Amino acid sequence: MAARASGEAVQSLVEGLARLMGRERVSTAPAVREQHGKDESWHPSLPPDAVVFPRSTAEVGEIVRRAAALRVPVIAFGTGTSLEGHVGAPYGGITISLRDMNRVLAVNAADMDARVEAGVTRKQINAFLRDTGLFFPVDPGADATLGGMAATGASGTNAVRYGTMRENVLAMTVVLADGSVVRTGSRARKSSSGYDLTRLFVGSEGTLGVITELDLRLYGIPEAVSAAVAAFPSLGAAVETTIATIQAGVPVARVELLDGATIAAVNRYSGLSHKEAPTLFFEFHGSAAGVKEQAGAVQAIAAEHGAEGFAWTATAEERNRLWQARHDAYYAILALRPGAGGWPTDVCVPISRLSECIRETLEDMKDLPFPAGIVGHVGDGNFHVAFVIDRENAEEVKAAERFNARLIARALAMDGTATGEHGVGRGKIKYMEREHGAALAVMRRIKRALDPDNLMNPGKVVEA
Amino acid sequence: MAARASGEAVQSLVEGLARLMGRERVSTAPAVREQHGKDESWHPSLPPDAVVFPRSTAEVGEIVRRAAALRVPVIAFGTGTSLEGHVGAPYGGITISLRDMNRVLAVNAADMDARVEAGVTRKQINAFLRDTGLFFPVDPGADATLGGMAATGASGTNAVRYGTMRENVLAMTVVLADGSVVRTGSRARKSSSGYDLTRLFVGSEGTLGVITELDLRLYGIPEAVSAAVAAFPSLGAAVETTIATIQAGVPVARVELLDGATIAAVNRYSGLSHKEAPTLFFEFHGSAAGVKEQAGAVQAIAAEHGAEGFAWTATAEERNRLWQARHDAYYAILALRPGAGGWPTDVCVPISRLSECIRETLEDMKDLPFPAGIVGHVGDGNFHVAFVIDRENAEEVKAAERFNARLIARALAMDGTATGEHGVGRGKIKYMEREHGAALAVMRRIKRALDPDNLMNPGKVVEA
Repeated sequence: MAARASGEAVQSLVEGLARLMGRERVSTAPAVREQHGKDESWHPSLPPDAVVFPRSTAEVGEIVRRAAALRVPVIAFGTGTSLEGHVGAPYGGITISLRDMNRVLAVNAADMDARVEAGVTRKQINAFLRDTGLFFPVDPGADATLGGMAATGASGTNAVRYGTMRENVLAMTVVLADGSVVRTGSRARKSSSGYDLTRLFVGSEGTLGVITELDLRLYGIPEAVSAAVAAFPSLGAAVETTIATIQAGVPVARVELLDGATIAAVNRYSGLSHKEAPTLFFEFHGSAAGVKEQAGAVQAIAAEHGAEGFAWTATAEERNRLWQARHDAYYAILALRPGAGGWPTDVCVPISRLSECIRETLEDMKDLPFPAGIVGHVGDGNFHVAFVIDRENAEEVKAAERFNARLIARALAMDGTATGEHGVGRGKIKYMEREHGAALAVMRRIKRALDPDNLMNPGKVVEA
Repeated sequence: MAARASGEAVQSLVEGLARLMGRERVSTAPAVREQHGKDESWHPSLPPDAVVFPRSTAEVGEIVRRAAALRVPVIAFGTGTSLEGHVGAPYGGITISLRDMNRVLAVNAADMDARVEAGVTRKQINAFLRDTGLFFPVDPGADATLGGMAATGASGTNAVRYGTMRENVLAMTVVLADGSVVRTGSRARKSSSGYDLTRLFVGSEGTLGVITELDLRLYGIPEAVSAAVAAFPSLGAAVETTIATIQAGVPVARVELLDGATIAAVNRYSGLSHKEAPTLFFEFHGSAAGVKEQAGAVQAIAAEHGAEGFAWTATAEERNRLWQARHDAYYAILALRPGAGGWPTDVCVPISRLSECIRETLEDMKDLPFPAGIVGHVGDGNFHVAFVIDRENAEEVKAAERFNARLIARALAMDGTATGEHGVGRGKIKYMEREHGAALAVMRRIKRALDPDNLMNPGKVVEA
């Protein structure tokens, strides 16, 4: 357990930082604190005592050094689009917004890498890269900061082809708990030189240090992009098609699953007329001939599994039309109950267990006192359940929590994980023991070794 | 600094283990100790006090628990094919050979993963998989154990397409310094659940724990494999061709560089008649049409960079002929000085600096008092220098060490790394401070947190 920051220590810290940085970059305004105490999850805001807006790694180092000396917790904040209560301040303290550290520092086209400050968002880097023929692929949906995406181990729909943040961060600059600054690697594409600190900080959710700069892998924008959609007679047939596609070595860029009920919701919401059956949405990247060949291979595999109406296109406009149901899915699920809020959760299982896991989850959903929907990054065995819930209703929240606990137990029993891409935050900390067993003690030892006073985003990932 | 194991403690440990495991699985024979005190590097043997041959994770746990209680160092040993003195016993202690833990525990074809004991070698797993249409891609050359490959963060010629051990281990079972057993992850393809212990243990060279089981990613054997070879007017043209190939999104499976002098050596050694110029060797994996398209794209790029005699084939026999020079390169370099020994070293730099780095290294090689050769995994910016040296000659060893120090300084100055794939062992420990700066202190803190008595392979990677 961390101790709550003392009022005097916070006051002294805030005054010192205001002198250092200027009053306009150190805010104690209630609205600013409230906004920085919550992300997009169902967790209520836990406002920090102050929010600061540094402009350099050196400033972040100085802020953390002073906070450490006064035993004040420190929480890093990107855009606040995390989904498990990653950014609240349960023990008070100061939030470091990376908002103003938003410069692209270098693009090395020959090396296909870029160096950015942590506050650069994924849309910003891709806009910056527009004329280079390169792009950064990781796409969690929200326009999150790249620092936040690294901190939470984000991924998204195209992880099946390009990997997650884990595979796409080459190195980072990190401010440690004592305010010192380290670089976790080099721009070399691979290294066997010492412990892999880059991967240790990816997904550590600010509990081991504050990420201030990142070296990222970039990719060539594919010459051609095509898309396909197919409906299946069963969930199992859709998942089997995905398995066979990957086994056949088709380098599919995206493969998303919507169950029949979610398709029905989207049909209603968006005025579409998809068959109300489990449906796969594919995207292919490659040469013009390559994407055609990929789609052909998948069409043949899908047909073997009883798919109906395999629709394929290589034009951008048609592609958006084919994928509209997938893009609208979350809004369509929310629209099942106007005025209520979304509560998304996710798990990931070995793909051989995916249809079983989704089927049992759909069965379990029948008893929920509110609507819910499922969307799956099926190529990775990762799927989301979105509850449409009245967050003020304690009974509903309890039902959601119980359902979530069963979902996680189901995934863990299938040798899966409690979260494939949303992270732990506060929301899933109670499942860590169950998932990791004795390995949780190793995580705690690492936490204590790097943050002995438990001041870095305390109360998240592991209880120290 | 670790303390040398006390003679009494070792004797007590060995006697206890002989009672537990049977005398035949606990050896103190000088020849066995000598063999387990060295790998394939230039480092002289540092024999352990005993070598034990456990058959299960539980046995490894019990061995480590007893060794810890008696403060006796523990060193894990696979096939001894590491290259930087990873397995010697500078402080004495016992070596745990994983030789008898060589069972393939499970193959999940639908999930494209397999679970193996740490002593299974890469050739063994691929022989086992032969009828499944799947394979494990990481290929460091030697038929190393998969546990050893994970421990050293191995990769090889096809890392440019399939990644290194880092990307291809899903989870591991590890015996910690106190003998307790943890699993570092699940079979889920991705996870954001807690700190990434899998990647922490990959490349930790047995200094944080002993890897006893691994869950590995598998891939579908490609429908077609083709190869190509082309000579270039300059090193720069060869590297530029590689950069343009990767930027164009050609998913090349292998791209290897031999410089003109190494080509000359192979021509002499193998009776070949390659043009004595910088030469690229390509391999393509995909569908029959796909590999043809890839080769065509690369041929066009190579022609733009002045390549001569682009030879391409899709037949296995021809492929071996085209690649023979690459396969024979190390032997051809050794044959430059019959009777002398090989000393391979490696560095990795951003690919934009690769031709400059190799050129300066070739220049530096001119003054060496022995022959040497260069072979590059050019797609990753990783290259090897092999010295052909009289290891008994102190002057030669000194010259090699000085050259190696300059090579590493050159790579680090280019934002590269002291080792792309061989690892640190004892050979490169002295360069860790220079490469990692303040981050080395983080590694030391992790080492102390997980191995407070410095008993796990002491004297490697980081001095505690």
